[in-house]
Amino acid sequence: MAYIAIEEGIPGILGPMMFRPETTKPLRELAEVLLRGDNTLSSAERETIAAFVSSRNDCRFCQLSHSAAAAEHLGGAEAHYALIDSVKADFESANVSPKLKALLTIAAKVQLGGKHVTAGDVAAARGQGASYREIHDTVLIAAAFCMFNRYVDGLATWQPEDPQEYKPMGKLMAHSGYTRTNWEADANAAAQR
Amino acid sequence: MAYIAIEEGIPGILGPMMFRPETTKPLRELAEVLLRGDNTLSSAERETIAAFVSSRNDCRFCQLSHSAAAAEHLGGAEAHYALIDSVKADFESANVSPKLKALLTIAAKVQLGGKHVTAGDVAAARGQGASYREIHDTVLIAAAFCMFNRYVDGLATWQPEDPQEYKPMGKLMAHSGYTRTNWEADANAAAQR
Repeated sequence: MAYIAIEEGIPGILGPMMFRPETTKPLRELAEVLLRGDNTLSSAERETIAAFVSSRNDCRFCQLSHSAAAAEHLGGAEAHYALIDSVKADFESANVSPKLKALLTIAAKVQLGGKHVTAGDVAAARGQGASYREIHDTVLIAAAFCMFNRYVDGLATWQPEDPQEYKPMGKLMAHSGYTRTNWEADANAAAQR
Repeated sequence: MAYIAIEEGIPGILGPMMFRPETTKPLRELAEVLLRGDNTLSSAERETIAAFVSSRNDCRFCQLSHSAAAAEHLGGAEAHYALIDSVKADFESANVSPKLKALLTIAAKVQLGGKHVTAGDVAAARGQGASYREIHDTVLIAAAFCMFNRYVDGLATWQPEDPQEYKPMGKLMAHSGYTRTNWEADANAAAQR
């Protein structure tokens, strides 16, 4: 049971988001612009960074839901889910671009704390063709998931056990986005299942 | 020098905020609703939680600016600044309410990671009269500053050395707020000094 009076069976972050709509509005807008807004990084790359940081923070709900969103952006096949799993397990040997690996190195440092990022980490990403805006967005995505992960786990929110249940969530996140207006109805429907 | 191409002399978070206005809008709205929106916790209490978490994250810019905002909400006297310093040094022995101490205990756990918060921490805060919404907001303020702190330090932003320079910043944050429309002009003026 969650630490605050939110309805049981609402998955993860949706519980506190329904509890406090005033803070939910900017949180949803932030996720939308960071993960789905206009960008030279694909949404799949940005969701991969989000899933990776959530994995390092050991936040199961965010890790599984954003892994699903990343995989669904790529097409939603088993191979896409396996690719995201391989990044979380060992990104250096995963089948992703050298630029994304350099950005994941920066994200891993941000997860530990802002001061861990070095000029050398940034120079390495620049050397792989990362723009200043891509570096900015990587730092902010990693930092934002240090917030979202703490929000979800700090309130001990309920979460589905079955990894398969994160697939429809990932589809919605990837293709309908974070600011759609009918999400409370979907969350209530999930709670009824 | 900051890691991305932002103008030198813009203090702390204002540099990346001017660099990327699309993400700045929800970040500013989140700070405004969390720290200055309608609430049973005073803005001074909420800014104290923000300064405390920033201190634990060793983010000098956020720590000094939000300490100043907290002190300015209390009246801006030297004694108010000293009170906030005493909370950061040892909140258990500081001259603040038992409820705020219980909320700071939760914030300290969130700073370490969401899973560190226990049912006992929440029960202790409830026992001191904290509402579920106050507990929710404490968790989200602490989580949000784990984001803001990483954003500021992960990009190696410039910051004023002199602690006195944070006083006018704190006054603006406390009394004019986080979503005022003329903040870029103020930041540019600060860079000219």
